[in-house]
Amino acid sequence: MNTFPSTSPTALPGDHPFAQVQVLAFDIFGTVVDWHGSIAREVRALYPQVDADAFALAWRSGYQPAMARVMRGEQGWTLIDALHRQILDAILPRFGLAHLGEAERHHLNRVWHRLDAWGDSVEGLTRLKRRYTLTTLSNGNIGLLTDMAKRAGLPWDCVLSAEVFKAYKPHPDTYLGVARVFDLPPQQVALVAAHHDDLAAARGCGLRTAYIERPHEFGAAQPKDVSPQPGNDLHATDLNDLASMLGC
Amino acid sequence: MNTFPSTSPTALPGDHPFAQVQVLAFDIFGTVVDWHGSIAREVRALYPQVDADAFALAWRSGYQPAMARVMRGEQGWTLIDALHRQILDAILPRFGLAHLGEAERHHLNRVWHRLDAWGDSVEGLTRLKRRYTLTTLSNGNIGLLTDMAKRAGLPWDCVLSAEVFKAYKPHPDTYLGVARVFDLPPQQVALVAAHHDDLAAARGCGLRTAYIERPHEFGAAQPKDVSPQPGNDLHATDLNDLASMLGC
Repeated sequence: MNTFPSTSPTALPGDHPFAQVQVLAFDIFGTVVDWHGSIAREVRALYPQVDADAFALAWRSGYQPAMARVMRGEQGWTLIDALHRQILDAILPRFGLAHLGEAERHHLNRVWHRLDAWGDSVEGLTRLKRRYTLTTLSNGNIGLLTDMAKRAGLPWDCVLSAEVFKAYKPHPDTYLGVARVFDLPPQQVALVAAHHDDLAAARGCGLRTAYIERPHEFGAAQPKDVSPQPGNDLHATDLNDLASMLGC
Repeated sequence: MNTFPSTSPTALPGDHPFAQVQVLAFDIFGTVVDWHGSIAREVRALYPQVDADAFALAWRSGYQPAMARVMRGEQGWTLIDALHRQILDAILPRFGLAHLGEAERHHLNRVWHRLDAWGDSVEGLTRLKRRYTLTTLSNGNIGLLTDMAKRAGLPWDCVLSAEVFKAYKPHPDTYLGVARVFDLPPQQVALVAAHHDDLAAARGCGLRTAYIERPHEFGAAQPKDVSPQPGNDLHATDLNDLASMLGC
């Protein structure tokens, strides 16, 4: 771990887009933790015969459609743990794992509670925590986020989730819900995320936004376009870079 | 701060009532933080002419009736910040403070976000955190609990509140809600509290219970009976004592 200044955070100039921000809300999967690498590593260790890279991608690719079914009302409110399990059950046969029993499926499904943080996350969050209130804002459920944080050492001040607001991102109730929880106007809350659609929805609700480059979110074999897009207030290479930009 | 062993927590015997417990849920006001002393100190500093001890007791005594109005449906779901403000507005004239303006009332109402921890709380929680997942389970709202924790250094893994469950303790939805969040049977969750009614309700839902003595919860002038009562699994003098009992 690099050392960082132990002095107090530097004040931001009054015209800085984050000058009034008090709460940083973080997207988690891909932004703070490496879901692809973590799942591929665990699948590779448990089931060496499986294409672990393809398995991780297939599992994740079921995520948006599953949430969309819930948001369209085709399925009642469902925690992500249960959605992950539905998707897992559906893809296992494709990877020659249809024979897995309940205990093995349950254990594998909980890999989402055991995702590793990107190398910069703990240090970057620790720096940012000196000035800001840090909360998760993830579609992952509270138990998942809490287990993950405890294992990976993520120093949240608060654990907010779609579970609290009974809506998944990008529903406005999630972004505006964070502002309401902290009794702040939306422009005093910022979303930090590696996904432009998430950031655009937050911006539409009046939040400030910071994009984080995670070029290997989908694995080293599938680098992601992380070039800056207009609209975001800040564009950082990682969470340490964001902390430096914010004088922390 | 006392030093405590840096070795791993000691395993509990299999027949220990907490042998299967994974999550400790903490009552906050009175159990972890000193609401009476903190409010009296702040009122005394701001308004020296006021009987600060009586003021703190009057404010707190409006709390249960206000929650009861909400739970009876006479008032819609309301965050504790708003209930505290209603009670504050009602008692100010009695203490010669009817002239306070909006900014002063707002600032004073936020004293509940600035409560000081009891002297043992940070160390006790830090010890317990080595083995258990620690969550708040308070009728206080999430923003209040998060501000309080950040200021006082309370190392929660998770911040759960009546706000998440849309019910105040002692409603069963709160205690069972913690078990559901962590996907655990109730007997793997314990409530830690300085109030027998809270503990009895948790026990009725199947949770394990630990009573914490806080003889000066209502001020040194009004010592509370903290003698053991039957039913609780553990009875500890403070959070360090609880940590020692649990081998942490």
